[in-house]
Amino acid sequence: MLVLGASVMTLTSWAQTKKANDKEAIRQQINSFIKAFRTRNVNLMMSLYTPDMVAFDIVPPLKDTGADTYRKTWEKTFKRFDGPIGIEVRDRNIVPGDKVAFAYQLLHLSATMTNGQKIDFWERMTLCFVKTNGKWLIMHEHVSVPADLRTGKAVLNLKP
Amino acid sequence: MLVLGASVMTLTSWAQTKKANDKEAIRQQINSFIKAFRTRNVNLMMSLYTPDMVAFDIVPPLKDTGADTYRKTWEKTFKRFDGPIGIEVRDRNIVPGDKVAFAYQLLHLSATMTNGQKIDFWERMTLCFVKTNGKWLIMHEHVSVPADLRTGKAVLNLKP
Repeated sequence: MLVLGASVMTLTSWAQTKKANDKEAIRQQINSFIKAFRTRNVNLMMSLYTPDMVAFDIVPPLKDTGADTYRKTWEKTFKRFDGPIGIEVRDRNIVPGDKVAFAYQLLHLSATMTNGQKIDFWERMTLCFVKTNGKWLIMHEHVSVPADLRTGKAVLNLKP
Repeated sequence: MLVLGASVMTLTSWAQTKKANDKEAIRQQINSFIKAFRTRNVNLMMSLYTPDMVAFDIVPPLKDTGADTYRKTWEKTFKRFDGPIGIEVRDRNIVPGDKVAFAYQLLHLSATMTNGQKIDFWERMTLCFVKTNGKWLIMHEHVSVPADLRTGKAVLNLKP
């Protein structure tokens, strides 16, 4: 009975440790995402995705399929930013499973674009991960701002 | 050696069966989501969520926290629709893990609103699930249309 109790304790504690480790590993992947965005590092960014990833990006098209396609999207995006890119993360929640995980958070983007336009808004970002060869990789990304369906406008002035 | 081979086979086949069962269970949950949407059934809709769910909805605010809050959002949404709600699902992918899963797809919405406005657009929907007491429940939902950040407009005329 004591032995059984100890085994159950060990199993629970092992599961908790695994979960904490997975959360930390995913947090580091998201931090790498932020770093890649801030420093316009396409190779670092692309190291975070599975080859068959699907993105629902903040801008058209409806979806990008495959890391090769999404690399071009990131290259195009990075060229649009002029000077430093400010990114603040808030309300992050990471939910890890055995081999599948998801994380959602709000991102505050502030920057100047190459056309002179200043951007300063909060967006929502959902990242869905699969564990591949011991590494948590993004298989699906969904980034957006809400829309006002009556006026047809993107809503860019919301604050958390 | 033969016995070991058989055990490995059995384990692989068990894992494949579990994965197929989980995919099917999640597909049924998404079908219930579509049915609840089409029939404006708030109770059916709310039976699909965890109490602590977080939604990034297509319309403001940035996020809704908790099923109690999101119930009010659905009630308000359903009141805006007049007559039948057309919903078509395309490009669905379900990725199940042990206790955590995600699914992403495109939805075509066509309907008339109570203010007379006709809607007819494709949106993107990501659903993140956790298995709770043997049931796959939505812990996170992200629905959106892309935005044109230069004009500030929601992009509602895209087709998959």
